[in-house]
Amino acid sequence: MDNNQIHWHLSLKLFTEEKAFGPGIARLLELADEYHSLNKAAQSMGMAYSKAWKILNNAENALEVRLLDRHAGGSMGGGAELTEEGRDLLNRYRGFERETKEAAEVLFNKYFG
Amino acid sequence: MDNNQIHWHLSLKLFTEEKAFGPGIARLLELADEYHSLNKAAQSMGMAYSKAWKILNNAENALEVRLLDRHAGGSMGGGAELTEEGRDLLNRYRGFERETKEAAEVLFNKYFG
Repeated sequence: MDNNQIHWHLSLKLFTEEKAFGPGIARLLELADEYHSLNKAAQSMGMAYSKAWKILNNAENALEVRLLDRHAGGSMGGGAELTEEGRDLLNRYRGFERETKEAAEVLFNKYFG
Repeated sequence: MDNNQIHWHLSLKLFTEEKAFGPGIARLLELADEYHSLNKAAQSMGMAYSKAWKILNNAENALEVRLLDRHAGGSMGGGAELTEEGRDLLNRYRGFERETKEAAEVLFNKYFG
C-alpha cells in the first residue's frame, strides 16, 4: 500500500431536521445568481427544471427561509436573484467548506503524508 | 432562519483510483477485530455476509493490501484478525477523521455560531 496514491474526499452538508443544504444546491444557487435564471442554472448542471425547483423548495422549507426570488414572465422575461439571506447562507457555507477543506488537507498530510 | 437549528455532517472517504475506504468498512473492520469474525461483524451491522466480503475485497484490491486475515474452519472454528497494515490504516483513518471533525466543529461555530 502506497500512501502517495491515496486521496481523500470530504462531503459537508447542513441539516435542520432533514437534509437541507449541500454542494448541489450551493452550485445551483451560484449559477442561478450568475444567469439570473433557475432554469438556465438547472440546464447547465444537466438537471431537470422540476428537480431544481424541488431541491430549492425542500431547502427553503427545511431552513424556513426564502433563498432565491423567482419571477415568472413580466417585462424582463422572468428572472431569479438570491435573497439577502440566500447570499448570506451561501457565503457562510462556502467559507465553512473552504476552511474545513484546508484543515482536512493539513490533517491528511499528517496521517497519510 | 435560525442558525441554532442548523447542524452539520461531514463524510470523509479515502480513494485510490476508485472508492476505497470510508465509515462503513472502518466500522466493519473494528467489529471484525472485536468479534474475531467477519460474519459476526456483518450481522451486528445488519449486513449480509456476502456484502461484507465484497466491501472488504474491493477495499483490499483498491489499496493493494490485505486488511483482514480470514480463517475458515479449523480447530479454532475459523476467525478473523486485522493485519498489521489493516490496523495501521484504521488508526490513521480514525485519527484523520477525529481531528478533521474537531476542526470542522470549530469552523461551524465560526460560520454558524
